[in-house]
Amino acid sequence: MNTHQHITPEVLISEVGPRDGLQSVKATMATADKLRWIDALVASGLREIEVCSFVPARLLPQMADAAEVVRHAVRHPGVTVMALVPNVQGARAALAAGAHKLTIPVSASAAHSLANVRKTREDMLQEVRAIAQLRADTAPGVRVEAAISTAFGCTLQGAVPEHEVIWLAQACIEAGVDEVGLSDTTGMANPAQVRRLFLQLRAAVGAQAGAAHLHNTRGLGLANCLAAYEAGVRTFDASLAGLGGCPYAPGASGNVVTEDLVFMFEAMGVRTGVNLERLLAARAPLRAGLPGELLYGMTAEAGLPKGWTQPA
Amino acid sequence: MNTHQHITPEVLISEVGPRDGLQSVKATMATADKLRWIDALVASGLREIEVCSFVPARLLPQMADAAEVVRHAVRHPGVTVMALVPNVQGARAALAAGAHKLTIPVSASAAHSLANVRKTREDMLQEVRAIAQLRADTAPGVRVEAAISTAFGCTLQGAVPEHEVIWLAQACIEAGVDEVGLSDTTGMANPAQVRRLFLQLRAAVGAQAGAAHLHNTRGLGLANCLAAYEAGVRTFDASLAGLGGCPYAPGASGNVVTEDLVFMFEAMGVRTGVNLERLLAARAPLRAGLPGELLYGMTAEAGLPKGWTQPA
Repeated sequence: MNTHQHITPEVLISEVGPRDGLQSVKATMATADKLRWIDALVASGLREIEVCSFVPARLLPQMADAAEVVRHAVRHPGVTVMALVPNVQGARAALAAGAHKLTIPVSASAAHSLANVRKTREDMLQEVRAIAQLRADTAPGVRVEAAISTAFGCTLQGAVPEHEVIWLAQACIEAGVDEVGLSDTTGMANPAQVRRLFLQLRAAVGAQAGAAHLHNTRGLGLANCLAAYEAGVRTFDASLAGLGGCPYAPGASGNVVTEDLVFMFEAMGVRTGVNLERLLAARAPLRAGLPGELLYGMTAEAGLPKGWTQPA
Repeated sequence: MNTHQHITPEVLISEVGPRDGLQSVKATMATADKLRWIDALVASGLREIEVCSFVPARLLPQMADAAEVVRHAVRHPGVTVMALVPNVQGARAALAAGAHKLTIPVSASAAHSLANVRKTREDMLQEVRAIAQLRADTAPGVRVEAAISTAFGCTLQGAVPEHEVIWLAQACIEAGVDEVGLSDTTGMANPAQVRRLFLQLRAAVGAQAGAAHLHNTRGLGLANCLAAYEAGVRTFDASLAGLGGCPYAPGASGNVVTEDLVFMFEAMGVRTGVNLERLLAARAPLRAGLPGELLYGMTAEAGLPKGWTQPA
């Protein structure tokens, strides 16, 4: 039995590697390898995992086995299995497979919206409304999140006005989602901006303010997570070994490394519910399933400090 | 003319690569290459550079040309040229060469003190007193800093009690130094601890609280710098390309990367006085002088964001 289940975590680490990571690499991980990796992530104590995207296989062949992956992951008790859905067709498939939570990417940048989902922001809001309606009609127990991408800047368009980000977040709530997070899709965020924007988000949507999805493109990932934590954020997306980024945002790369993020919080005395030794061990099935892929992570490189212990 | 000189920087970035970096690598950089690298660092707008250690050449052959390096660096107007001195003999040599500022490493960990300078902490305080006296007698315009190493933990001894760190800092001030900084020699610091300890330091020694010297061993370098900034620290040690660490602390590696630190502050609107393009260009003479050495830095890898500008 995992003794970590006795701890009440103070932050929720939402692992996005099996979705964000795997859809960003050229290779396609075999389904059996994905399942082994997800099992190892669960064994570390992670309690929310974004396991796949429901998108046409001709666009993202890496995600062709999305339904099978969800059906496997939901067998783990106590784990919230998330799936990314860009539209109502994807949402229908995700709900049919049994996903517990849907995340919808909604670009704050008009240019990125067209590049990523081939829709204007207004058209995307219609899609959000349709997904929320489908959930209400067919799966009221499922949570729906909108993740505002390019919230901190866009490599295609440049700066993204903050009031547009907040307007879009409010519009998503009005369209029926349960929570709205902010994503630094392009790795352009800085700690002052992260704090400012999450405080604005909380002022605008209250407790429906959701996850911080921050990147480590220029090394600021953990500093940005710290700023978000100080602004009241308690859910953090991260990717094991920093796998992932966004294939449609040129130059963007590098999700926050889950291992380093967990190390930071645990070292600060902020409980994550994740066992760091077991989390580091989950790199082995990732490496086995994606041989030759570059794995990031300073904690893995340095090892845990002498005498490292986590509360049992 | 460097237009950056018109800006009043809000933080001082103290570049330690030519000392901390070069003494940590196996190769010895040729003197001419060091001087070219230092010139490039100066050209980026850096206004404090730790250029060498005055230690016996049989212990650190990489630093055998320390006096020549200081004599070159002090020709740059407006740049504070620092030298590390572990004892009064080193201080005498540094002052003779014309260094503007001396930094004395004083280990908070009893075990690290013996390993690093072969002295107890009490013996080291005698050395600090002798150096401060030498300065008062022969070079009153020179500043002297004590850098409390292993202030956040020690790979040899484990935890280092916070009250011992503060006691040692106060003892250094009483011994005659102008400022005391805290160093995460072993890469064990976390943001909560950094904030707590720098606030305690300021409470204990007031405006004589000095630089934060933080490492990126487990990826927390910039998050720790952010925490230090929030605790009122305004001087930050960093090393171009993250070169360096401590050869006597097993497993320790990775100074904060100057380029990423400058990017963070400038993106936040905190002025450093350093031009990021020119700082990135200073990697070329480093690479030329140390071929094959691993250079870190996410900003260098990702490039500057689209439309990046700094205040002129």
